Amino acid sequence: MDIASPVDERHATVPDFPGFLARIARDVPAHCILTRPDQTRVYECDGLALYRELPPVVVLPENEAQVIAILKACHEHNVPVVPRGSGTGLSGGATPHPQGVVIGLAKLNRILRLDPATCVAVVGPGVRNLAISEAAAPHGLYYAPDPSSQIACSIGGNVAENSGGVHCLKYGLTVHNVLRVRMVTVEGEIVELGGEAPDAPGLNLLQAFIGSEGMLGLVTEVTVRLIPRPQLARVVMASFPSVEQAGEGVTRIIAGGIIPAGLELMDKRSVHMVEPFVQAGYDLEAEAILLCESDGTPDEVAEEIGRIEALLREAGATRLQTSASEAERLKFWAGRKNAFPAAGRISPDYYCMDGTIPRRHLGRVLAAIAGMETRFGLRCANVFHAGDGNLHPLILFDANRPDEVERAEAFGAAILELCVQVGGTITGEHGVGLEKINQMCTQFTREELDAFAAVKRAFDPYGLLNPLKLIPTLVRCAEYGKMHVHQGEVRFPDIPRF
Amino acid sequence: MDIASPVDERHATVPDFPGFLARIARDVPAHCILTRPDQTRVYECDGLALYRELPPVVVLPENEAQVIAILKACHEHNVPVVPRGSGTGLSGGATPHPQGVVIGLAKLNRILRLDPATCVAVVGPGVRNLAISEAAAPHGLYYAPDPSSQIACSIGGNVAENSGGVHCLKYGLTVHNVLRVRMVTVEGEIVELGGEAPDAPGLNLLQAFIGSEGMLGLVTEVTVRLIPRPQLARVVMASFPSVEQAGEGVTRIIAGGIIPAGLELMDKRSVHMVEPFVQAGYDLEAEAILLCESDGTPDEVAEEIGRIEALLREAGATRLQTSASEAERLKFWAGRKNAFPAAGRISPDYYCMDGTIPRRHLGRVLAAIAGMETRFGLRCANVFHAGDGNLHPLILFDANRPDEVERAEAFGAAILELCVQVGGTITGEHGVGLEKINQMCTQFTREELDAFAAVKRAFDPYGLLNPLKLIPTLVRCAEYGKMHVHQGEVRFPDIPRF
Repeated sequence: MDIASPVDERHATVPDFPGFLARIARDVPAHCILTRPDQTRVYECDGLALYRELPPVVVLPENEAQVIAILKACHEHNVPVVPRGSGTGLSGGATPHPQGVVIGLAKLNRILRLDPATCVAVVGPGVRNLAISEAAAPHGLYYAPDPSSQIACSIGGNVAENSGGVHCLKYGLTVHNVLRVRMVTVEGEIVELGGEAPDAPGLNLLQAFIGSEGMLGLVTEVTVRLIPRPQLARVVMASFPSVEQAGEGVTRIIAGGIIPAGLELMDKRSVHMVEPFVQAGYDLEAEAILLCESDGTPDEVAEEIGRIEALLREAGATRLQTSASEAERLKFWAGRKNAFPAAGRISPDYYCMDGTIPRRHLGRVLAAIAGMETRFGLRCANVFHAGDGNLHPLILFDANRPDEVERAEAFGAAILELCVQVGGTITGEHGVGLEKINQMCTQFTREELDAFAAVKRAFDPYGLLNPLKLIPTLVRCAEYGKMHVHQGEVRFPDIPRF
Repeated sequence: MDIASPVDERHATVPDFPGFLARIARDVPAHCILTRPDQTRVYECDGLALYRELPPVVVLPENEAQVIAILKACHEHNVPVVPRGSGTGLSGGATPHPQGVVIGLAKLNRILRLDPATCVAVVGPGVRNLAISEAAAPHGLYYAPDPSSQIACSIGGNVAENSGGVHCLKYGLTVHNVLRVRMVTVEGEIVELGGEAPDAPGLNLLQAFIGSEGMLGLVTEVTVRLIPRPQLARVVMASFPSVEQAGEGVTRIIAGGIIPAGLELMDKRSVHMVEPFVQAGYDLEAEAILLCESDGTPDEVAEEIGRIEALLREAGATRLQTSASEAERLKFWAGRKNAFPAAGRISPDYYCMDGTIPRRHLGRVLAAIAGMETRFGLRCANVFHAGDGNLHPLILFDANRPDEVERAEAFGAAILELCVQVGGTITGEHGVGLEKINQMCTQFTREELDAFAAVKRAFDPYGLLNPLKLIPTLVRCAEYGKMHVHQGEVRFPDIPRF
């Protein structure tokens, strides 16, 4: 395979903005084109507000034909493209390019078809995640992936980032729940990937597209699978005297052949951060609490909850409480779902990390993070999609104090490096974006990065789509000093790869 | 995107076989290199015996280092590569290239790791599908996808073809059960795709690799997910007075929110073909029979079987019989699983097709196939993975009679065209290979074929890996005359796309 071409050198030619604006004025109404700083300011960052860049132009197309016209103009006039959904992403995937156009797809927000018989919905990329479930609710159906931002985030953004949520352990990520994507290439051509049949002939490019962070094309239509809402769901809340024992509870549940609808762990600091804010009834004495949900028919749930309670007791749970009503179930979850806003009550700023580790290393990794609190002089609260090993450490800092931003970033980078060292990955569900581009050098070998770059070039030979994100250049990796190549593989001397 | 380059013109230079053989002799033991026709004859076809080609060389490497050495030599000496597993494929994916080497991976047949705690097995590509489940059985686990050839077929071949099986409706295809693939590129470099974490950073190329029919690289290691064997499984066998009513039964079960472990339909000819051979107890009076399996805990199964029986009665089932023991369940399935061998008892040859249609068109498509029997003067028996719309018409013919091979091929092609016309696809689980290369022109637009070709070139710029298969050139489509492009989309004037 070729050496990964430096994507950031491919469009070294200066973009021709006047030509671009003249070209799109033919096809896109004037009210959809924003160029004044007071209009474009709101697009200067996504949910990762640490990274900001004022975009020279923002275009908000109202239909697919306009998306095609804009991309053709970008292609013709060498203008980099940053696609954007609702801007709730947490890795800087929608951070503007200083010389590029932001294409916001929020206006493509129609539900085009909803077929309860085949359990399928076809929607525009700007449709909000929760709006799909709301539209499907009268038919007893819903769309399963539920990121915490589901009230606001768009399905197009979910496709770009392969978003997850607390129910992903049982029901899968975006990639498991999207059947088809209709997208526009950088040349303005329509390509449909996937389909409603279980297997598609040809190369299976749908999954490569999902999670590609706007690097391969712009989505104009998404076909999602809807599933029947379970008759009943109940959640067990368990207190543990140590994080290790909570981790043991997770292991026993999975080893027992149970796939819970949700399995979340919060450490003591998270519990203390959340409880005064939400009054979810969390145990303030516990070193860790575990939330474990079962859903299905009433018989299935009763049987499974019994087994879950027994397994958690065996693992050393000191207190067990099972939701007795839907209101109580929602209250138990409200604490977990509000962990991020709650962080804002005890700290001026927080930085939400996202890494994945093999579950067996949970105790070791949390102990190491506790050590990092001292090293970087910052506090960290840990919430954890425990079932699939996805950590969300919340690093608490104050951007107005000297060095705290830098220390928070260094703390985050150290956590990600640790995830890779124990055999995990640098992202669970938030994507790579700008934020984790350096850690990609640690995660992958040169040959693997080459494969990514080659596929990127197959779709976007000019490097115009969301440049500088997701795939680092080898030059960047060399500068970062983390490409430890030994016989073709990245090696850490002391810790075996997972 | 670029115009799809004619892959079959990329290696127009003559392969240098003497140079190739001299090169591999350094790294591969002589007993692994077959060049005499009496040795290579057995590799002249795969399960699609209609296509035969005697390969000039067959190499059977014994480890990954040898695979690397062979691919480097192919690359250096311009030798096309045809990878092969157990040779049970049904679309000619392993048909030899007249100027290429067959690389058989059957000797890489070790189970490298089996971890019951994390429900994962790491195996060589030559490990047989069933051997994984046998190794996992002591831990109460198994590997879910179960192609009919599972006794013989290899996991590497399953990865190449994205194989399915009767339990795929509930448990997914190969793509849903493989977590990671370690592969060697055409340049002899190791690349690992995917991982054991639920989401992987970077581009999700694992799924593009699965089902890529040996066009992107050669597998040397596969990590699969193991799942707990259900406590109980029972199957309902239902007789229907018409295929349409059996189809209605399928619709009601799916619309009722039930995902059966298996949901298979057989028409009267299939039943009459199988029953004398297997004595499965099938109803010879029925126009169609449906097999619907439920698995889980005894309570779950009892509840679900009750609902299935009620729904099938509502759809017009005239006779219902539910397996009362594991032996009876296996007997009911034995008929379905032996449909292909049974065809051999009533016809000298048979041609197994593989297409997928939206379930609602079942009756219409089977009626059209009945019409084709007259048109092509051949009989056809239909078995059907009804739950996911995957048809397996068995066209019965006699290769020794004039024209019957040609008529069987034309019959098969007509069925595939029909599948596309009603909004389906040209393959459900057997792949495209050589067999369906023309129908790819019908299935996809020029832009979509361009995307496949561009990704193929990203991995294999020289077009050495399994040439002439899976992705047709535009020249070929033009000759086939089926690329009906209208505003960028293939259109059929009378039938709307699904």
